Amino acid sequence: MTLAPGATVGILGGGQLGRMLALAAAELGLMTHIYCPEADSPAFAVAAAHTVAGYEDEAALAAFASAVDLVTLEFENIPLATLNFLAARAPLAPGAKSLAVAQDRLAEKTLMGELAIGVPAFAEVASQQDIYSALARTGRPAILKTRRMGYDGKGQAVIRPGDDLVSAWRAIGEAPAILEAFIRFEREISVVMARAADGTMRAYDIAENRHVNGILATTTLPAAVTPELAADAVDIAERIAIALDHVGVLAVEMFVLPGGDLLVNEIAPRVHNSGHWTQDASLTSQFEQHIRAIAGWPLGDTARHSDVIMENLLGADVDRWAEILAEPGARLHLYGKAEARPGRKMGHVNRVFPSEKR
Amino acid sequence: MTLAPGATVGILGGGQLGRMLALAAAELGLMTHIYCPEADSPAFAVAAAHTVAGYEDEAALAAFASAVDLVTLEFENIPLATLNFLAARAPLAPGAKSLAVAQDRLAEKTLMGELAIGVPAFAEVASQQDIYSALARTGRPAILKTRRMGYDGKGQAVIRPGDDLVSAWRAIGEAPAILEAFIRFEREISVVMARAADGTMRAYDIAENRHVNGILATTTLPAAVTPELAADAVDIAERIAIALDHVGVLAVEMFVLPGGDLLVNEIAPRVHNSGHWTQDASLTSQFEQHIRAIAGWPLGDTARHSDVIMENLLGADVDRWAEILAEPGARLHLYGKAEARPGRKMGHVNRVFPSEKR
Repeated sequence: MTLAPGATVGILGGGQLGRMLALAAAELGLMTHIYCPEADSPAFAVAAAHTVAGYEDEAALAAFASAVDLVTLEFENIPLATLNFLAARAPLAPGAKSLAVAQDRLAEKTLMGELAIGVPAFAEVASQQDIYSALARTGRPAILKTRRMGYDGKGQAVIRPGDDLVSAWRAIGEAPAILEAFIRFEREISVVMARAADGTMRAYDIAENRHVNGILATTTLPAAVTPELAADAVDIAERIAIALDHVGVLAVEMFVLPGGDLLVNEIAPRVHNSGHWTQDASLTSQFEQHIRAIAGWPLGDTARHSDVIMENLLGADVDRWAEILAEPGARLHLYGKAEARPGRKMGHVNRVFPSEKR
Repeated sequence: MTLAPGATVGILGGGQLGRMLALAAAELGLMTHIYCPEADSPAFAVAAAHTVAGYEDEAALAAFASAVDLVTLEFENIPLATLNFLAARAPLAPGAKSLAVAQDRLAEKTLMGELAIGVPAFAEVASQQDIYSALARTGRPAILKTRRMGYDGKGQAVIRPGDDLVSAWRAIGEAPAILEAFIRFEREISVVMARAADGTMRAYDIAENRHVNGILATTTLPAAVTPELAADAVDIAERIAIALDHVGVLAVEMFVLPGGDLLVNEIAPRVHNSGHWTQDASLTSQFEQHIRAIAGWPLGDTARHSDVIMENLLGADVDRWAEILAEPGARLHLYGKAEARPGRKMGHVNRVFPSEKR
């Protein structure tokens, strides 16, 4: 399946990722149609069409599928029933396998095991009773994480020595979970890469990430890693993409241990916050790359022309917009969200250090 | 006047320039509202709102002015009455003086004279009778150009030795015109620069342009000019911007004569085709720069990080889209136009030669 310019890409989810995907699609002459339950979704303002409806609304989903040439998504937590309903009516990329695995931390960890890719020690926690045996496996501190619907540190509880287990279990809503050993890592990195429908893969340079309160704060390029470690990290991401028969951008977050070993933290079968730097320091942004991959087009050049530090603007951080606009080399991206709630991703800034040609 | 993120920029004209302005505004968290008489305008697909109405429709213009926080435009040939009507109801940038001069080749040439900026020898042709005395001033070959509404070689007729003068006069519709001496130039360049409301100015590196049949074919950076000539060219553009009290992007096309002298060919008080390279080889695109200038924001960094050649895709050229997508370093931009009429600007490609950082 190859789209031609003028075709319409349907995007599930109307947040900032959907918005930046729509902007990239427009640059390539494609139309976009956003599907999102929230009436004030930021992506609507840059799309030719939008649908406000729930993910269970089959009439709206059917109309959406018939109005678009292809369906993609900005986030992985869309009900599988919705994806299957749409996939029966329009091409869907990435496919249901990528989504099924990425939606469930246990399925994700199980796949890593099958691929002999290292992950933190973990155990399934299906009920409160399971926490005790799981703790025996992970030791303390450990992190209890819901299997589903977790992002940006949500659905997680840290269990330190002396902490009450029942409180942790309640804190995550007593939902099916996994308990993970707390990793003392040297640094956090991510591989953002894309896989085309024909199996071609291209990875961006390794990104080094810093999280604060479970939310990405900064991404720095180049990462302080050796070429060997970088090659290992890309190899891991590529093996995951192949195993999922993934089409589109895929991000894999990893921990670098003091000895140089890599453990996979989590995967995101979509454009990712740690790839936002590509908008201003790479020839092809991750958003364009995703559109190319799902459209059946050749992947773009991932050459990086500049060093760069991406900083997320959370909540009131966005009030600094005027000051950032005045900074040389700072590239401001705002998402058009009206309300700056604490912790809400309002925008980001890429501080770029180019090699100037004069 | 300073816009805040979330404000709405009204754009007169819904072609590719309006579309790329809207995309740049969206990246900065601004909303856009496009006003255009044509119902299938390419910019509509990326804007939050649009109005399809004529430039004489005062009810529609008044509603548009009240729906936006600021009015700008993608092309200079908007009736001055329309601009004055809007300027009485909403901030307008650039202002009416920039437009009045740029709409009329005679006013443009007259201003250059006042500023002691070189232009090709010319004479006014108000009636058929005037052509004879005008030719005595310019010699042959010469170019008869309508004073108003000319672009991309439209409204022009070349008068070579032996050519019939009456045919040339008829070819341009017997409209008020000027006759210009035909210039044997060494190269064509343009200065794309911006002037902010506070008078700050920033120019991009000089662009070298090649026209075919009166339409821009390619723009190359760097231009083959000396630093001294580049400084002279920027100085000319800045003096024009100041004289017009211009706010926004301004492009000045110039001829470089064999001896190194510069003659101004024409000015465009807006983003310009010869600035499209900035999208992929500069930190700040001309579209973002225009938005920054009119929003009352600081101008962005114009540092160029790559060498680049921009090629326009006219008419059936756009059929090469798949091949261009596969070229390393080629950045494809398509305008979302349905019909590829001969000579119609369908898109462009920036071929970028970055200094890679690995």
